[in-house]
Amino acid sequence: MSPKITVELLRQLRQAMRNTKYIAEPIQAYIVPSGDAHQSEYIAPCDCRREFICGFNGSAGTAIVTEKHAAMWTDGRYFLQASQQMDNNWTLMKMGLKETLSQEDWLISVLPDNSTVGVDPWIIAADQWKNMSKALASAGHSLVAVQDNLIDAIWRDRPTRPSTQLLTLGLGFTGLTWQDKMTALRSKMAERKISWFVATALDEIAWLFNLRGSDIEYNPVFFAYAIVGMNTIRLFVDIKRLAVPTVREHLQLDTPSKAELSVQTAPYESVFTELQAVCASLGPKEKVWISDKASCALTQVIPKAHRSPIPYTHLCLAKAVKNATEIQGMKMAHIKDAVALCELFAWLEKEIPKGTVTEISAADKAEELRSQQKDFVGLSFPSISSVGPNGAIIHYRPLPETNRTLSLNEIYLLDSGAQYIDGTTDVTRTMHFGSPSAYEKETFTYVLKGHIAVSAAIFPNGTKGHLLDSFARQALWESGLDYLHGTGHGVGCFLNVHEGPCGISYKTFADEPLEAGMIVSDEPGYYEDGLFGIRIENVVLVVPAKPKYNYRNKGSLTFEPLTLVPIQAKMVNTDLLTQKERDWVNEYHRQCRETIGAELERQGRKEAMDWLIRETQPIA
Amino acid sequence: MSPKITVELLRQLRQAMRNTKYIAEPIQAYIVPSGDAHQSEYIAPCDCRREFICGFNGSAGTAIVTEKHAAMWTDGRYFLQASQQMDNNWTLMKMGLKETLSQEDWLISVLPDNSTVGVDPWIIAADQWKNMSKALASAGHSLVAVQDNLIDAIWRDRPTRPSTQLLTLGLGFTGLTWQDKMTALRSKMAERKISWFVATALDEIAWLFNLRGSDIEYNPVFFAYAIVGMNTIRLFVDIKRLAVPTVREHLQLDTPSKAELSVQTAPYESVFTELQAVCASLGPKEKVWISDKASCALTQVIPKAHRSPIPYTHLCLAKAVKNATEIQGMKMAHIKDAVALCELFAWLEKEIPKGTVTEISAADKAEELRSQQKDFVGLSFPSISSVGPNGAIIHYRPLPETNRTLSLNEIYLLDSGAQYIDGTTDVTRTMHFGSPSAYEKETFTYVLKGHIAVSAAIFPNGTKGHLLDSFARQALWESGLDYLHGTGHGVGCFLNVHEGPCGISYKTFADEPLEAGMIVSDEPGYYEDGLFGIRIENVVLVVPAKPKYNYRNKGSLTFEPLTLVPIQAKMVNTDLLTQKERDWVNEYHRQCRETIGAELERQGRKEAMDWLIRETQPIA
Repeated sequence: MSPKITVELLRQLRQAMRNTKYIAEPIQAYIVPSGDAHQSEYIAPCDCRREFICGFNGSAGTAIVTEKHAAMWTDGRYFLQASQQMDNNWTLMKMGLKETLSQEDWLISVLPDNSTVGVDPWIIAADQWKNMSKALASAGHSLVAVQDNLIDAIWRDRPTRPSTQLLTLGLGFTGLTWQDKMTALRSKMAERKISWFVATALDEIAWLFNLRGSDIEYNPVFFAYAIVGMNTIRLFVDIKRLAVPTVREHLQLDTPSKAELSVQTAPYESVFTELQAVCASLGPKEKVWISDKASCALTQVIPKAHRSPIPYTHLCLAKAVKNATEIQGMKMAHIKDAVALCELFAWLEKEIPKGTVTEISAADKAEELRSQQKDFVGLSFPSISSVGPNGAIIHYRPLPETNRTLSLNEIYLLDSGAQYIDGTTDVTRTMHFGSPSAYEKETFTYVLKGHIAVSAAIFPNGTKGHLLDSFARQALWESGLDYLHGTGHGVGCFLNVHEGPCGISYKTFADEPLEAGMIVSDEPGYYEDGLFGIRIENVVLVVPAKPKYNYRNKGSLTFEPLTLVPIQAKMVNTDLLTQKERDWVNEYHRQCRETIGAELERQGRKEAMDWLIRETQPIA
Repeated sequence: MSPKITVELLRQLRQAMRNTKYIAEPIQAYIVPSGDAHQSEYIAPCDCRREFICGFNGSAGTAIVTEKHAAMWTDGRYFLQASQQMDNNWTLMKMGLKETLSQEDWLISVLPDNSTVGVDPWIIAADQWKNMSKALASAGHSLVAVQDNLIDAIWRDRPTRPSTQLLTLGLGFTGLTWQDKMTALRSKMAERKISWFVATALDEIAWLFNLRGSDIEYNPVFFAYAIVGMNTIRLFVDIKRLAVPTVREHLQLDTPSKAELSVQTAPYESVFTELQAVCASLGPKEKVWISDKASCALTQVIPKAHRSPIPYTHLCLAKAVKNATEIQGMKMAHIKDAVALCELFAWLEKEIPKGTVTEISAADKAEELRSQQKDFVGLSFPSISSVGPNGAIIHYRPLPETNRTLSLNEIYLLDSGAQYIDGTTDVTRTMHFGSPSAYEKETFTYVLKGHIAVSAAIFPNGTKGHLLDSFARQALWESGLDYLHGTGHGVGCFLNVHEGPCGISYKTFADEPLEAGMIVSDEPGYYEDGLFGIRIENVVLVVPAKPKYNYRNKGSLTFEPLTLVPIQAKMVNTDLLTQKERDWVNEYHRQCRETIGAELERQGRKEAMDWLIRETQPIA
């Protein structure tokens, strides 16, 4: 991986920062956040502005350019990658280390007195704007909205915004019509005396309307906004996409239904002026709901007195709790996914000794096998297919220049997943195809203990995910080890593989309490820089538990694994497991054999079946 | 317990709310917060204004009186007590219940349009003022500072503010001179470019100056403020207290030392005008540090542009990390405390069968035994001495009308502690003097497992306490049980028994990471309403751990128990313990026997020694 040469780009950007074509007064610093106008985690090529300016293409990072400095903040997953992708015009700011200044403190430390800092108000969230603005003001600086994006101004061959075909989802996949969802949303609005709701997150809009797109790779979403009133539904989307009969039918665009369920469509870009119009006609006590993670630009359209910012929208919460149809779909998707992975691992066992399988070809094979499964749409994120030292790069993605060959001597870590029309998968398995060392087995076993501790945990209703995070680390901590990422994230149903508002992380972002029907990942790991990486990840469903007692009738919860792919027994030092943990492994493998075995049988995949039977032998 | 009759008091208060002697315009509501001008948790009698007006004397609660209504907010610990202590002029507002309005929302719901709400700006914290003021403004009302306290205006026999004798602490107790502490504070100020620091928390001031008082029961503090500049130290305190030669000597009031270490003293009340004078002479870039929990009155003296509010002051952080001398003192205090408790439990065993020991007499006996120990000053909080169902009332305090007799049939829970000149203690033991039931033993054992899980936890440097909270609950959760309080709080060294900024709680208040030298309590529990309460509490010291590996050279921490009082083996169902847990109990009891045994021997306390030997037999 060679760094992007950014001398000329930085020169041009700094020139733009002084150019009165874009701004009234020169600015002394320009912030380039990671996201798009919807604060998406994965973004379309036209929105990869931070990558364009600094070269780093990880999923999280913020670049700031001043007249003299250029710095980029990212977290532990990306320290190595960022240091390889950025040239020495850039300073890598390692978030989470004690000595690393926050963006605010760094700006205050480098800026001349009374500086002006600019940012595109569409790609900074309202809450981030507020914090940054306050911090800068306290030091005598100011944050200003620069309407023209200065990266776009210097980006000559910037791709156009995608506008892919829309896919409509019927009741068999969604469990609820979009009209049902609209009614539920409005009843929540009525309950909280809210007149209007502005939807800006792409997965929320896709979920609400039971529509999918492919505007952003790996994420079946489409660029849109929605504004919902008690009698009005406005959908802002590239109008060309609505020409398709199935879509018109689905949204009932030509068959006027009840007035309050008729959808008015308008161009994507018109959301700003339409929201202005809505706000102009607000009564004195009327309130508008908008996520505090929505763009600053759109948020500020709503006069402060009418704005009711919320950390999580009703849609975000409703989407997180899967209904019976969605749960059934997720289970089916995970069975198909497991079939593909069993085939892959059986194939790898045969092929690796020949020395012809690489990280890239293994990932390609996994994709090929998944694509043979029913209702396969695409991958749910770029496969992390990594051998030996590459496994220690937490969000590694194999490239021709880093591509290693799988061998009998190094650990192989595959973190991959797919989008099927019935559900989204995300699974990590760590394997050794030769003889793992005692140390590799020891650390793998600690990670497994952590995985089991979360998966088997019983906890009261209303518990927030962050309280479970240390269960995953306990065994590692006892040996002085740790991993520098969270333990789990919410998973969408044929939607984004990362979704809020629940998760399992030491970071105590305001996560919502876990409840039955939520789906999260359980993925502790251990990474030895320069040597290997270990991660064991299942997607798990929150289900009611029935322990011996029921304190204050609160009820208890636990997890049910949806992922059913064997965990390599060869990597386990069984002496380090308790009897309870051994029982868990054996019961898990029994389920894998039973459920995936039946499907392999049905699909007539004999070699994978043999592999599954062998890999699910009980451990002693 | 009979309620306080408040008809006449409320009439007088409402009259004062219209009296132009105190306010320019009548106010429609008056807020009476719980605290004093230093936002102390425990307060002096002269500051018990909320109790005076409504009768409720718990440690937390806010009263609000409008022209027509009177309401008082408190939390779950106090619902029963408050309902018994208040007459029917008052509405009890049960915090934490979904249907209970917040103070702001309640005010908005009952006030006429454009109302004015008053509060004494000295006893409301700046951050609370800000929130309340904002909420009221959003509904068209306003919050105003009423300089004369209206409760004081109607409180005829209000006690005077205590001004007890000051005690000076030498290096042998503090490990650092106050001059050393001042220098460290100033170096932190210089690092953050802060010109002045205003100290308002009483324990911080006591710690900084190595002085103690007894103005507030259980808390060895004295009423004072301090303002520290880079060359100035101002101490605001009742001047009479400084007449004592030892105090003058300690503060070097008569022997001018280096100019920047000479202490200027001024009357307690003059802090306001002195701070005004300091602020009037501030340069344009000068900043003043003040805790965001300081009083609104004092905070607002500092012009906003110069104000640098912080959640935790440097003193709060520095005080939390005990130095070697303080640690040694805390260890000594805990040894003496354990001697007293061993004697108490040996005595109880003999006396309980006679049927003459009550909750009150047991607590008195504990105090008597503690008072025989060297450098005993007083209790560190009111003893929670509770039998059977009273044990389920988490913050129970025995009163003549609730006093139960200790027996062979009910569980006894004693949560108590003392102030010694060398340290502060806080310990809970739960005992059965007859034959505990299988269920009592089972739940006790879960609590013990939780206690051990925290105490024996190994975790990376930089871990925040809230991440350890679920370790304490894991065994309870697995059986569907839980407890509704945090697991631990910081403990001062001959200072407040509850101190920030660290703790172990599911509530993720912004706790600071644990570091070696911090001292916290480890006190999981289980409470069965109407039957019994169980809590096992040790005070523990954060110490470096040396596990097998050292990931990224981060280092690891664990806890060392300072409390060394046997945990009753009779209450343990050993079948539910793992071998590791049994080893922990045996090793803990070995330490108790070795350390406390030696001291009992030295003090010639034979009966307690016999009890200790018996109670520290290894369990199988």
